[in-house]
Amino acid sequence: MDIQQLVRTLKTANDSKIVMLVADGLGGLPLQPGGPTELEAARAPNLDALARRGVSGSMIPIKPGITPGSGPGHLGLFGYDPVESLIGRGALEATGVGFALGPNDVAIRCNFCTLDADGNIADRRAGRIPSGQSGPLAVKLREVKISGVEIFVEPVKEHRFVVVFRGEGLGGNVGDTDPQRTGVPPSDPEPGDKPSEKTAHVAREFLAKAQELLADQPKANGLTMRGFSKKPDLPTYEEAYGLKAAAIAVYPMYKGLAQLVGMEIVGRPGSLSEEIDVLKEAWDDYDFFFVHFKYTDSRGEDGDFPAKVKMVEQFDGIIPRVVELNPKVLIVTGDHSTPATLKGHSWHPVPTLLVADTCRPDGCEAFGEKEALHGGLGHFEAVYLMPLALAHAERLGKFGA
Amino acid sequence: MDIQQLVRTLKTANDSKIVMLVADGLGGLPLQPGGPTELEAARAPNLDALARRGVSGSMIPIKPGITPGSGPGHLGLFGYDPVESLIGRGALEATGVGFALGPNDVAIRCNFCTLDADGNIADRRAGRIPSGQSGPLAVKLREVKISGVEIFVEPVKEHRFVVVFRGEGLGGNVGDTDPQRTGVPPSDPEPGDKPSEKTAHVAREFLAKAQELLADQPKANGLTMRGFSKKPDLPTYEEAYGLKAAAIAVYPMYKGLAQLVGMEIVGRPGSLSEEIDVLKEAWDDYDFFFVHFKYTDSRGEDGDFPAKVKMVEQFDGIIPRVVELNPKVLIVTGDHSTPATLKGHSWHPVPTLLVADTCRPDGCEAFGEKEALHGGLGHFEAVYLMPLALAHAERLGKFGA
Repeated sequence: MDIQQLVRTLKTANDSKIVMLVADGLGGLPLQPGGPTELEAARAPNLDALARRGVSGSMIPIKPGITPGSGPGHLGLFGYDPVESLIGRGALEATGVGFALGPNDVAIRCNFCTLDADGNIADRRAGRIPSGQSGPLAVKLREVKISGVEIFVEPVKEHRFVVVFRGEGLGGNVGDTDPQRTGVPPSDPEPGDKPSEKTAHVAREFLAKAQELLADQPKANGLTMRGFSKKPDLPTYEEAYGLKAAAIAVYPMYKGLAQLVGMEIVGRPGSLSEEIDVLKEAWDDYDFFFVHFKYTDSRGEDGDFPAKVKMVEQFDGIIPRVVELNPKVLIVTGDHSTPATLKGHSWHPVPTLLVADTCRPDGCEAFGEKEALHGGLGHFEAVYLMPLALAHAERLGKFGA
Repeated sequence: MDIQQLVRTLKTANDSKIVMLVADGLGGLPLQPGGPTELEAARAPNLDALARRGVSGSMIPIKPGITPGSGPGHLGLFGYDPVESLIGRGALEATGVGFALGPNDVAIRCNFCTLDADGNIADRRAGRIPSGQSGPLAVKLREVKISGVEIFVEPVKEHRFVVVFRGEGLGGNVGDTDPQRTGVPPSDPEPGDKPSEKTAHVAREFLAKAQELLADQPKANGLTMRGFSKKPDLPTYEEAYGLKAAAIAVYPMYKGLAQLVGMEIVGRPGSLSEEIDVLKEAWDDYDFFFVHFKYTDSRGEDGDFPAKVKMVEQFDGIIPRVVELNPKVLIVTGDHSTPATLKGHSWHPVPTLLVADTCRPDGCEAFGEKEALHGGLGHFEAVYLMPLALAHAERLGKFGA
């Protein structure tokens, strides 16, 4: 029995509110040996005040040394075993453009490619055709109809788009048609098991009809399919925790990840401040709120230390508006670290804060990586964050008599 | 999927060098309540400087409370689940004398024993016959030939020696012939499964022929066999981590353990200083270096606190020569604690240090048990040390998109 299954047997209901603020890529590294991290360098009086009220900890997103992508990073925060709960590449791509996958869907990452006169792939990415040209082409492919199956086509970016087949009995185990090299034709979609034979058949038909529609394009006159996958079979927040959960995010990827665990997408905020407006408006309608802030990660990815510091300060600025709502449990964390010095996600633990009236004082005086090493939550794996939140919300019963 | 399997899916290559310095039995206990441990009492300015540059942690060799032998202690350090990756007693004994087991080998711990006129065991250890007498006797047993099987006999110590059968289709599941009591004859080697029937047959033949060669010995006129086992089926360092690994050690046991995971034994050093000479010479030829220092453990086993302190200081003395080589990742650890006050291995965590440019400062000012409790690596199990090393060497890709 893993921790989520255990929690499921113990969950009880009350009218408490839990808020999880996720500053993407929050953890960092110093510019100079021994110097402060981005978070430590930021003036963040509101976060520091929370650190004095609550408990801090150094959170390991997956396992020590493992750098998470956004998918596993968020699944861990949401309390799902991030190694076992794999999201297929197609499902993640669909999720990333905000497509709400259903149980009868198979999602596929597609590339426009350039075929030569013999039907061999000359360019696997159709010359990285700009989104302005590829988007309308993807939309054009919606004309393809196959009996018994509903088809969705969504542009992504440049040569990339997503296709979703919706229908009864479609398996998700079909081989890629992208041969990963040029000078050969696209591969045939091979089913890997019995239920996927129908999917492979539909894919073949789709490819033929799409090919016709693309035939006279100068660059994007072909397409390949990769990462066939179904929606991962995860219990919802309601099933796992008894929580009616809302997700508030600007970017489609994070809305999509929240949807995979049954959260409802609330509002259409365009900024952090608007996200808090949405939070306030939705306050009475949900038990749990996941609020995602993207730009700490973005500026880390840019390698811009001072800009990431500023984003932390901006994030700090909205804290009083959240505190004012008086959640029973307030969590501040990140899905992973994105140190500006590394210009990308990293394996370093994420400073994490949990504030509730039931917190045991831990002596932490500020919110930061070094301070969190001495916090009451210790060094802990992300999957334990939701159980801790539920416990502090007094939503978990006793285990055993 | 365990952590090593996960790492295997994420490993990437670069030209970084990783050094793991293992001071055997490094962790200790104070002589007086509240006093310093051996490591804390030692003047170790070089290790302290590393602690300021890197991250410290309190490493649990197996699980809390479990005292490891050298086998599991090292397998954990090497990143193999030390509970699941069992090394059979025969394989460990062969490894301990530096015998490089192959995939077709079955290794057996043997004892010389004294048989009475009726063929019953009178002394299970042949009066603990001294090594000076038993060694030549073991070598004499090399005269035994059995068709279709290659036979190796290696002296160990006193009444103990090792036999290895090498051949196709030899199973490792054969019962001991040592009945664990006197007044009865040695037991027949019973096969535990089909592939071990051949092994049991070979063992019976070997026992009969060896018996003849020993018949006129006054004490060691018989022998028993225990712990039949094959080489454990572990992925190599190359397979698991993509690392070309070198082992530098003085004692056969540690060379043997390194060989079980596919490390190459480099040089024939006779002292710690010579080990560092070897490290320097081999620098360009490997990605990973395991350097083993025995005497911290030996003096702990002796119960000699001041002598163990001196060994730590000697170990500290070679640090600058290692730092000079500028490894991307430098680890200082031990396979377990050996407190002088306990005169043996113990379950206490091992202070551990990881130094790399990608370390996040943790505020540790010295290398020691108490200081390591506040370190950035927290309290962690040994199996995570290799993933952390690979991460800091930037040899691991992102998990999930």
